[in-house]
Amino acid sequence: MKFASDNNGPVHPKIMEALMRANEGAVPSYGADDLTAQAVEKVRDVFEAPDASVFLVPTGTAANALILGSLTKPWETIFCANFAHIHVDECHAPEAFTGGAKITPVGSDIDKFNADELKTAISAFNPDNMQQSGLGPVSATQVTERGTLYSLEEIAGIAEVCREAGVPLHLDGARFANAAAALGCSAAEMSWKAGVDAVSFGATKNGAMAVEAAVIFDPAKAVEFRRRQQRGALVFSKARYLAAQMDAYLTDGLWLETAAEANRLAAALESGIAGIDGVKFAFPRQANMIFVWMPRFVHRALMDAGAYYYIEAGKLQGDDPHEPLLGRLVCDWSVDEADIAKFIDFAQGAKP
Amino acid sequence: MKFASDNNGPVHPKIMEALMRANEGAVPSYGADDLTAQAVEKVRDVFEAPDASVFLVPTGTAANALILGSLTKPWETIFCANFAHIHVDECHAPEAFTGGAKITPVGSDIDKFNADELKTAISAFNPDNMQQSGLGPVSATQVTERGTLYSLEEIAGIAEVCREAGVPLHLDGARFANAAAALGCSAAEMSWKAGVDAVSFGATKNGAMAVEAAVIFDPAKAVEFRRRQQRGALVFSKARYLAAQMDAYLTDGLWLETAAEANRLAAALESGIAGIDGVKFAFPRQANMIFVWMPRFVHRALMDAGAYYYIEAGKLQGDDPHEPLLGRLVCDWSVDEADIAKFIDFAQGAKP
Amino acid sequence: MKFASDNNGPVHPKIMEALMRANEGAVPSYGADDLTAQAVEKVRDVFEAPDASVFLVPTGTAANALILGSLTKPWETIFCANFAHIHVDECHAPEAFTGGAKITPVGSDIDKFNADELKTAISAFNPDNMQQSGLGPVSATQVTERGTLYSLEEIAGIAEVCREAGVPLHLDGARFANAAAALGCSAAEMSWKAGVDAVSFGATKNGAMAVEAAVIFDPAKAVEFRRRQQRGALVFSKARYLAAQMDAYLTDGLWLETAAEANRLAAALESGIAGIDGVKFAFPRQANMIFVWMPRFVHRALMDAGAYYYIEAGKLQGDDPHEPLLGRLVCDWSVDEADIAKFIDFAQGAKP
Amino acid sequence: MKFASDNNGPVHPKIMEALMRANEGAVPSYGADDLTAQAVEKVRDVFEAPDASVFLVPTGTAANALILGSLTKPWETIFCANFAHIHVDECHAPEAFTGGAKITPVGSDIDKFNADELKTAISAFNPDNMQQSGLGPVSATQVTERGTLYSLEEIAGIAEVCREAGVPLHLDGARFANAAAALGCSAAEMSWKAGVDAVSFGATKNGAMAVEAAVIFDPAKAVEFRRRQQRGALVFSKARYLAAQMDAYLTDGLWLETAAEANRLAAALESGIAGIDGVKFAFPRQANMIFVWMPRFVHRALMDAGAYYYIEAGKLQGDDPHEPLLGRLVCDWSVDEADIAKFIDFAQGAKP
Repeated sequence: MKFASDNNGPVHPKIMEALMRANEGAVPSYGADDLTAQAVEKVRDVFEAPDASVFLVPTGTAANALILGSLTKPWETIFCANFAHIHVDECHAPEAFTGGAKITPVGSDIDKFNADELKTAISAFNPDNMQQSGLGPVSATQVTERGTLYSLEEIAGIAEVCREAGVPLHLDGARFANAAAALGCSAAEMSWKAGVDAVSFGATKNGAMAVEAAVIFDPAKAVEFRRRQQRGALVFSKARYLAAQMDAYLTDGLWLETAAEANRLAAALESGIAGIDGVKFAFPRQANMIFVWMPRFVHRALMDAGAYYYIEAGKLQGDDPHEPLLGRLVCDWSVDEADIAKFIDFAQGAKP
Repeated sequence: MKFASDNNGPVHPKIMEALMRANEGAVPSYGADDLTAQAVEKVRDVFEAPDASVFLVPTGTAANALILGSLTKPWETIFCANFAHIHVDECHAPEAFTGGAKITPVGSDIDKFNADELKTAISAFNPDNMQQSGLGPVSATQVTERGTLYSLEEIAGIAEVCREAGVPLHLDGARFANAAAALGCSAAEMSWKAGVDAVSFGATKNGAMAVEAAVIFDPAKAVEFRRRQQRGALVFSKARYLAAQMDAYLTDGLWLETAAEANRLAAALESGIAGIDGVKFAFPRQANMIFVWMPRFVHRALMDAGAYYYIEAGKLQGDDPHEPLLGRLVCDWSVDEADIAKFIDFAQGAKP
Repeated sequence: MKFASDNNGPVHPKIMEALMRANEGAVPSYGADDLTAQAVEKVRDVFEAPDASVFLVPTGTAANALILGSLTKPWETIFCANFAHIHVDECHAPEAFTGGAKITPVGSDIDKFNADELKTAISAFNPDNMQQSGLGPVSATQVTERGTLYSLEEIAGIAEVCREAGVPLHLDGARFANAAAALGCSAAEMSWKAGVDAVSFGATKNGAMAVEAAVIFDPAKAVEFRRRQQRGALVFSKARYLAAQMDAYLTDGLWLETAAEANRLAAALESGIAGIDGVKFAFPRQANMIFVWMPRFVHRALMDAGAYYYIEAGKLQGDDPHEPLLGRLVCDWSVDEADIAKFIDFAQGAKP
Repeated sequence: MKFASDNNGPVHPKIMEALMRANEGAVPSYGADDLTAQAVEKVRDVFEAPDASVFLVPTGTAANALILGSLTKPWETIFCANFAHIHVDECHAPEAFTGGAKITPVGSDIDKFNADELKTAISAFNPDNMQQSGLGPVSATQVTERGTLYSLEEIAGIAEVCREAGVPLHLDGARFANAAAALGCSAAEMSWKAGVDAVSFGATKNGAMAVEAAVIFDPAKAVEFRRRQQRGALVFSKARYLAAQMDAYLTDGLWLETAAEANRLAAALESGIAGIDGVKFAFPRQANMIFVWMPRFVHRALMDAGAYYYIEAGKLQGDDPHEPLLGRLVCDWSVDEADIAKFIDFAQGAKP
């Protein structure tokens, strides 16, 4: 019953097999091998972007920080949602890789912002005022940190504001596949066709071992990326093992298959606990993450039974058994349906 | 006939098997898993340093830059050999991770420096002069970038100068195992027992996929490491796969076994080409790297036959067939003895 | 009728005379001259802090950024008011001098925050969570950016929260003198006696040419300051000319005299426009700054008559003559009373 | 008898008068005043460069670091002489303002490098190798740190190498006026006409209080300068006082007059000690700095008589009265001829 994160699960067998297949003979290092070229080409194919600059890096923070570093001057500010990963979960990696840029949270919701809120936030800065921050890129997270989604129209609306302001739009897609599977759209539709300039295209949370692609659609914006990657200590010598993962991930639609499965499992978990007394969803479940208020005694019964997940608000310790605490439940493709059933059973059977 | 680098080879089967074994079920992420704890403990065991702070990172540059970042203020200078990897091959990662420190090359040789040269270099700085650099750590590379070794006495002599100057000593051990195997000494003897404060303990070039251990013997010097690692985008979510590699690498002496094999193969290659007319070794081969002057026509014959390695000085193109060009030949454990024999044959049979 | 800022005015005659007196013969540079020692001692005297570390720098941003750089790690966040100068008016100098720290705005008011709001803001961070920001210093601005004051009790309350959280408290005192004059308290009472750890002690806005003192009460926290100042290009070779200003500023209470005069002039201006129809003060005038809503036609009449000041909200252009626009009016000691009278006249006489 | 540095002297009376004249009434801050515009225009006039971007900053390190910051990427290396001020006397300000660039010393002499040496230094880098430094600007110091000069032909030769390599050429002109006076050339001839792209144009060492001009001939290279200056805490609010200095400095040729006088005084000092037994000049005196070997007993006699200057090599303490120690003697325009005569007398009269 491990629902703490979609990075708790193992590597998908097909990706592990690809690693083994790649483990043959000597090949050039630092990305000059054929498999890297092939994997990069597959990313371009999936995004229908034959000219895009594509770089394989081992962590999501690396993809975000290197892209933002490429798009942001030290005196500019990045716009994102209040709870964006880049703002609250990366220990200042964006600040480090940009050389000291700021991050300006946008909007009143914690997970998302909309085009109007972005417009307002941007209009608070006067680009001619040298004492203020300059305008930097906008970064939206898809799936958001609260498991919700931007529709394609919402993304396009945000992109329109970016275009007017003359700033690029970045998509933090650590869970890009889960979003694409949920929206039923293509990678291109959810990115450049909607006005997105750069994507952190995640694979690690969705079946890979440790690989993400940084995709920058206009190669002119990517000319410094490799230098930044190198001085960021983020270039693998045995690059083929990043490539093998990404290659397998994008072969025969595996990336969408695992994402759809993760979403389906989360939906099953959601519907199983939906009817329980005192259970209330904090955000609509739109992909593979559930944020749910449940009474303390329910959480306790689950934890006692060995469930592993995070309490995001409130404390397990406390007197009132009925006090609602916010739990976060995440599924990846590897979650056992039996565990879901067990979880639902324990939740339903919990006694104050 | 691939001798370009010890990062061209595949992952050792035992390490690949360990990755597969680790690929079971869901476990906590970001290093809170049992396998990470076990691997860290194994590093401490190998170094006979039960209190050491140990961190697993994916690249050698990451280990170097994070350790140097922890030990160096932005206004201090790091001392190292002229051709140290940190100075000429990491695209300013040490400068980036220290926030702007300098690097001061020491000595007249390109591969190594000695205690006296270090003393002279340090004495050029007046720590009371606020306009100059402050004194930062000393970094020695073992095996050096030219394939040579520091003896334990040489390391101890350098450490003595460091102690007098009040600066820490770092060992860039991307090829630590090759050095230990060649010197026939223990990890502890080549590090803290000789006065070393921190080690970048490499595994990638010696059979792993992508893992190095940053070892800091005094935990007080490591308190900031994890924050630096996080903002450096260098923390793996699925940390077990770094741990599995390091764990297998240190099990049953695999690390020394593969290193000794790499050294043995390099020695075989060395002795095979030693007698050839016009062949002259630029540096003594002491571990798994050979730097050798060979006439242009010999290089050409080898390249034509499909050999893959770097020319470090001179150009393959050129009129004089007898002009000596400097070649770099590196072996890892995976090199095929038949390839060595073939290489020697082609070299011996080359005609101007 | 120049009320745009207290940095529009000239240098006080007594300070200019001190510069001329200092202009005699050759003296050691970079602060090794007697006058620098004397000025530093005077700052210590005024603060009743004989052990304090004191540094003279040419700009307020320099004092803020160097102090915050000394107190903040790159992965920590600084807490301050929403409209703090360090957050919105220094073009990322704090981010640059800390190497990439964040700034977290505190509270619901734009000018000030209180102890409870600070406690809440700090409690949102879990210091054990390596993905989040670490806790950095708290910075309060006195006089605030909206001309209001923290009482000594408010400062002490904030300091108490800082002590509990184990973080230092910085006071941005670009208008320190105006605040001390208004509160009728000593420099010590408004700083270390209330729990403040470091002060940016301004002089430029209050009669000097270009000098501020960075005062750090615990010298152990200041050991890196001089290095930071040097690499920040902020050490004057002819340091005596910074010292001469600060020395004169602190001689015979000039600093409090000019500040009291500035406050008095602002009070006169305030009371002169207070009765006018449609005039409404946005913040209480507590020192030398006035934030006042006035109808567009009043602003226009004033601007047409040659008044020079900033419109902080709204635009001078616009159809509705009665729409209130927020004006900022600031006095230094040099403001001409006749200009105040003229300004009041034009405001009173304005016609829609 | 103060010859320690040309920053020991006072402000020239004409510059002090200009400061007093500027001290009238209220004017816009941060450089929006008329006097700043006028001073900037005068700099352009002196350089015959009507389109140049010109910024006034308070220190020479500020001019150097901001210019180099504008011209250098964090992964590039700056080329300069071994003893360049930017390399050994600015406590990593260039590293800080570039975000972590390196500095590569060029040539075998400590004061200067020549075109051939520069070519060799540049050719050691392969711009296609992402692990190495990229090519950054070249910085030459005129007058050099050892008091010597580059001829116009030497500068043009260096500029030619820069052009071929596609990198800009910066001139650190802390003593630009002394060089121009010595060479008898115009500011334009010693800069853009010889191929220089940017100049740190010093005034502080030559009669000003604290002002230097950063001059960038191609405005396109200066678009970020103001933001960098602001986040560097290097923008004066009362900018008119920087402008007043520069304006007076460039009025009626004062800058060349004071420089010529400083050079003349140094020449007098040089010729006065030239004949003394055991006195040997380490470098030809070409402007206002003398580097001279004198026996220990001569130095001691001078120091005992109250002379103030630096010993650059060797120690005043020591047994052998005849051991030569390297002294540095610098004159600015304010040096007293009587002091020179006294110095010569004491040197001549010294007894072992």
